[in-house]
Amino acid sequence: MSHNTFGHLFRVTTWGESHGPALGCVVDGCPPGLPLDAAFIQQFLDKRRPGTSRFVTQRQEPDQVKILSGVFEDDRTDGPVTTGTPISLMIENTDQRSKDYREIRDRYRPGHADYTYDQKYGVRDYRGGGRSSARETAARVAAGAVARQVLGKDIQIRGAVVQIGPHAVDRARLDWSTTESNPFWCPDPDMVPVWEEFLDTTRKAGSSTGAIVEIQASGLPAGWGAPIYGKLDSELASAMMGINAAKGVEIGAGFAAAAMSGEENADRMRMGEEGKPVFGANNNGGVAGGLSTGQPLVVRVAIKPTSSILTPVESITRDGEEVDVRTIGRHDPCVGIRAVPVAEAMMACVLADAKLRHRGQTGR
Amino acid sequence: MSHNTFGHLFRVTTWGESHGPALGCVVDGCPPGLPLDAAFIQQFLDKRRPGTSRFVTQRQEPDQVKILSGVFEDDRTDGPVTTGTPISLMIENTDQRSKDYREIRDRYRPGHADYTYDQKYGVRDYRGGGRSSARETAARVAAGAVARQVLGKDIQIRGAVVQIGPHAVDRARLDWSTTESNPFWCPDPDMVPVWEEFLDTTRKAGSSTGAIVEIQASGLPAGWGAPIYGKLDSELASAMMGINAAKGVEIGAGFAAAAMSGEENADRMRMGEEGKPVFGANNNGGVAGGLSTGQPLVVRVAIKPTSSILTPVESITRDGEEVDVRTIGRHDPCVGIRAVPVAEAMMACVLADAKLRHRGQTGR
Amino acid sequence: MSHNTFGHLFRVTTWGESHGPALGCVVDGCPPGLPLDAAFIQQFLDKRRPGTSRFVTQRQEPDQVKILSGVFEDDRTDGPVTTGTPISLMIENTDQRSKDYREIRDRYRPGHADYTYDQKYGVRDYRGGGRSSARETAARVAAGAVARQVLGKDIQIRGAVVQIGPHAVDRARLDWSTTESNPFWCPDPDMVPVWEEFLDTTRKAGSSTGAIVEIQASGLPAGWGAPIYGKLDSELASAMMGINAAKGVEIGAGFAAAAMSGEENADRMRMGEEGKPVFGANNNGGVAGGLSTGQPLVVRVAIKPTSSILTPVESITRDGEEVDVRTIGRHDPCVGIRAVPVAEAMMACVLADAKLRHRGQTGR
Amino acid sequence: MSHNTFGHLFRVTTWGESHGPALGCVVDGCPPGLPLDAAFIQQFLDKRRPGTSRFVTQRQEPDQVKILSGVFEDDRTDGPVTTGTPISLMIENTDQRSKDYREIRDRYRPGHADYTYDQKYGVRDYRGGGRSSARETAARVAAGAVARQVLGKDIQIRGAVVQIGPHAVDRARLDWSTTESNPFWCPDPDMVPVWEEFLDTTRKAGSSTGAIVEIQASGLPAGWGAPIYGKLDSELASAMMGINAAKGVEIGAGFAAAAMSGEENADRMRMGEEGKPVFGANNNGGVAGGLSTGQPLVVRVAIKPTSSILTPVESITRDGEEVDVRTIGRHDPCVGIRAVPVAEAMMACVLADAKLRHRGQTGR
Repeated sequence: MSHNTFGHLFRVTTWGESHGPALGCVVDGCPPGLPLDAAFIQQFLDKRRPGTSRFVTQRQEPDQVKILSGVFEDDRTDGPVTTGTPISLMIENTDQRSKDYREIRDRYRPGHADYTYDQKYGVRDYRGGGRSSARETAARVAAGAVARQVLGKDIQIRGAVVQIGPHAVDRARLDWSTTESNPFWCPDPDMVPVWEEFLDTTRKAGSSTGAIVEIQASGLPAGWGAPIYGKLDSELASAMMGINAAKGVEIGAGFAAAAMSGEENADRMRMGEEGKPVFGANNNGGVAGGLSTGQPLVVRVAIKPTSSILTPVESITRDGEEVDVRTIGRHDPCVGIRAVPVAEAMMACVLADAKLRHRGQTGR
Repeated sequence: MSHNTFGHLFRVTTWGESHGPALGCVVDGCPPGLPLDAAFIQQFLDKRRPGTSRFVTQRQEPDQVKILSGVFEDDRTDGPVTTGTPISLMIENTDQRSKDYREIRDRYRPGHADYTYDQKYGVRDYRGGGRSSARETAARVAAGAVARQVLGKDIQIRGAVVQIGPHAVDRARLDWSTTESNPFWCPDPDMVPVWEEFLDTTRKAGSSTGAIVEIQASGLPAGWGAPIYGKLDSELASAMMGINAAKGVEIGAGFAAAAMSGEENADRMRMGEEGKPVFGANNNGGVAGGLSTGQPLVVRVAIKPTSSILTPVESITRDGEEVDVRTIGRHDPCVGIRAVPVAEAMMACVLADAKLRHRGQTGR
Repeated sequence: MSHNTFGHLFRVTTWGESHGPALGCVVDGCPPGLPLDAAFIQQFLDKRRPGTSRFVTQRQEPDQVKILSGVFEDDRTDGPVTTGTPISLMIENTDQRSKDYREIRDRYRPGHADYTYDQKYGVRDYRGGGRSSARETAARVAAGAVARQVLGKDIQIRGAVVQIGPHAVDRARLDWSTTESNPFWCPDPDMVPVWEEFLDTTRKAGSSTGAIVEIQASGLPAGWGAPIYGKLDSELASAMMGINAAKGVEIGAGFAAAAMSGEENADRMRMGEEGKPVFGANNNGGVAGGLSTGQPLVVRVAIKPTSSILTPVESITRDGEEVDVRTIGRHDPCVGIRAVPVAEAMMACVLADAKLRHRGQTGR
Repeated sequence: MSHNTFGHLFRVTTWGESHGPALGCVVDGCPPGLPLDAAFIQQFLDKRRPGTSRFVTQRQEPDQVKILSGVFEDDRTDGPVTTGTPISLMIENTDQRSKDYREIRDRYRPGHADYTYDQKYGVRDYRGGGRSSARETAARVAAGAVARQVLGKDIQIRGAVVQIGPHAVDRARLDWSTTESNPFWCPDPDMVPVWEEFLDTTRKAGSSTGAIVEIQASGLPAGWGAPIYGKLDSELASAMMGINAAKGVEIGAGFAAAAMSGEENADRMRMGEEGKPVFGANNNGGVAGGLSTGQPLVVRVAIKPTSSILTPVESITRDGEEVDVRTIGRHDPCVGIRAVPVAEAMMACVLADAKLRHRGQTGR
């Protein structure tokens, strides 16, 4: 896998900087004949668009996607359909306030990629975090939309925030139908005012907080993934840990499984209707031996608090001077909230790739 | 990346089944001129060899590695050295008690890959878990030895178990020099008798327990890894989640970072000696923006309890009958212990690949 | 390797259709700090631009390239330089006369990809040949420009046409300095009028002819390429055979070597100045055992005559009717001429990738 | 693609040196449930085994293949079948006469990889040509056998020698049924005595000669291959040019197409039985636009004469001295003859990969 391409049969290559003229991706290996137009992709981008609430970045960006290739329509197709050739998607940047970052041109924001990029490349585009900016994820969200068409309607993907700071949802109270009626994708109505207050306080203090995001996928058959290195959980771990500010990934019971006994952790199987197995639990989170079990995939990602805060933090400059860095300008008090549509998109891309690889090797 | 190959420049392809005649790997892309002989590799295999204590699998396997290619020696080399061509390593299986597993030929052990393999392939080698067996990791440990030569002596890799079942080490008491003087790679001497008793009880009951393993790597320069998809933390997450029974991976503060504020989580930088930065903390775990920071890499892996237990667990057969499955035969009460040298090997392979890729792109 | 990405460390992913809004490429893995701006790339595109003589396609296309990412400039860089992050290049299509092709919407032009695309995908963009059009090569020429910066000034790449139809150049008369002073990149001044007359006749008859193109690269060190599957000649063969209408690739003596004896074919070596070997001949064409020898690379590509001709050719339609197909509209009587800058670009990309891979594995 | 792995879904990684203890390959991505045993593979190896006539290498090697993984059999399978997991094949070297090459330990045989390997790696296994030896092809032939099972009985692959030195077969006289009744895989009975005499003369003189090999594959559907970079002809060119001593690859009319007109070169299409197209010619050699047309694939490979000859050839040593090199010991007067089963195997591997990729992307 190249530095900026992921997937094996369903491959996505992204490009673009936060403060460059545009960003985009090339999606390659998409099956032909799938309906695809810009409006379909746009709905997923709108879900992540900055400026939708006072809790996310105050940058105004229309994020309009254009399809530049890979789709065709005439009077015999049923609307625009994929041709099987590469699909190039582009999103133009229109709102770039470079001057907000000039103060820290030579200062390394702790925890960001500033220092590491200079060490690796000797040169970096410091405006808005350059390539490391979370805006790059717009391209991945667009690719995820294409992936959803590959997966089809039988596979459902949904994401939510399950913890902000120290405040976790009550799993007994979860109602996934409520995630889109609050600004946090919160599936626990009682937590919404708690998070609201916590984030207001955090934001006004110029501070930041972490979060945990959970993504589920249901409707998969058993058998997707390839044992050992193409394991479905490996691919998911790689994709999710690649999200900006991600510091942990777990599947099913995750880290809690370490404290369980074999009896507690076993996912019992009985026969259900239509001769299909029914599982008693899903500690495996939908993956066993690296392959899908047919149970819902359950993945959680831990997002750290951003280092772009108002409080001065001890750091150094490019020339080795000690300075205190504080970030003035637009920032997210909780970047984890915006990770939800990105994580959903990564789930979709990983599954689309697994679907095609499974079909390629086995014919099913 | 193929199903059974990982890495990009330093590539490892493994092969072999638990109950086949042998298993091995091909390591490709290794730089030439590095000292390498079977004894060097063997020491890492011996660290993982089953039968070393009553707490791990009671299978007796000499696990002797042979180097079949990629190494050359004559009177002008300083001992055997790598040629730069592929290095083929093989380990023959000598102790395979097939009959222990015959009872469950058609039964699906819950949580294992039995059911998922049948769903994917329609055929599987059920003896000893076939390809999904933990024995496959011997090949990866062998590859890790080669990777260590690529990394050189300046880079130190060390692993330990930091939690067994509900019993976690006290981080204030950690002494990494003690990990090899007990059967658990435990770095907290006070926990050793606690784990001993807990595992004795678990094993005699025919039950099993999970664990958390921690791997550290120090001596890295800053700048290894490639932003976005070749991110060092993505590669580590993928490698570690691919370890048998792994259910979670975290880096640095990991899931705990979700509850931190930006101030608590920031890794402050000051100037140290020789004009090199000194960090105040390492919540990032050695990675920022997907690249190494120069700080030690700190990675933890959660291993679930094995499903191969004596207690009957509800399951089904290949033909859809409901049965109770119990596993008689050799098994690990805590497979997490044996994950330590495997995780160390994966760390080495990921870093060797990162080192060569960095050198390829930047010349450094 | 994906369907539309080639290379391993220096990777190029292209996208775009002949009659879509734009086409382009993402170049990934480029070392940082190399000077790069649009004007530099543009010179290579202008070399291939249609409409430059009456012997090539009469389509007017400005082919202006834009750099959308991967390059940065401020007062401390010496002009715009690569950042090491992906370089996205885009070329907008401005002159697309769709109606010229409507007559053959359902007809399969023999020898083109029309029939095969429908068989594979079930849908195709038939306007101007869609993805299979030679216009896609503009993206590859742009990528080749970036590759040249990676290679540096010590490596010289040059291309020429050495045969059009049955008329081959006289190798004793070759003068590479004359290739840019005629419309054919002909290195044999005496052949120019012969080709001129031949092509005029061919074009007026609405017919077409094939050609052989030769590309040379000098200044390479020995040792580039990776034995067996990353062989330099394998990579070159793949890249050159991928050029539209290519039907053969040979290196050095090529097919003529089949008739030679070992004595005739041997490239003798003697010592030259500065302790470097001097070769007596170059039948190997610069590659031995899959690695560069340090001698100039010499590669030839055979380009077949295009099937888009005025003469009716028996063919079939999508519905299985028998028709005669004739192509009215702009076409090249000899597409081989336009292959020269494309082949030069492919040479550059393959060598850039080989350079970085060699450096990655060996440190040199 | 890694240095020693080729293919994308059906992937082959080879390993082993000419004078090491063994060589082999790992075949990964093979569909499950295909019959496979050692005897089936052995037949293809026996076809290439040295010592079968006085015209090929006089080294006695049983070349017995062992299957070490990836195949399973019990009372419910119909003999041994592939499991879908990696298939490891090994062939042990038993006849290695190192001393024959000692004289040239420090001498570079012109045209071989000796010089280039030293330049790249600084160290090489000089015994028998190390990794660059033609014996490595045994592993590829074994992999080709597996590929044939993937392709199934409907696809026929056959190879022949069509020219030795200056003596080409008469295409009007071709009878492919006669290729296995002479030591040259010659399909033109009248050429057999001519080649016999020519090679006897060449061998006794200690000289060598080149050859051209032709491989055909029939029974393919249309649509295999992926446009632009996964083009079927690109993949074939890469695979064939990777054969030891290969210096040219052409498809269909190949280099002769350069001299043709569009009318001469067009492959006319009419409707045949069962509503399938019938082609009037096959100048395309079975590939158009990078995809299979359904017509037979026709590929030719030019093999140069080996440099291992008795006649002294001017060369240099590792220390820069001028010497004359002559090769005493076993050698092929025409290595091209042995290329036939290797080229057939490469054809099989490329097609198996294309089949699975096509199925993965399109479901067909």
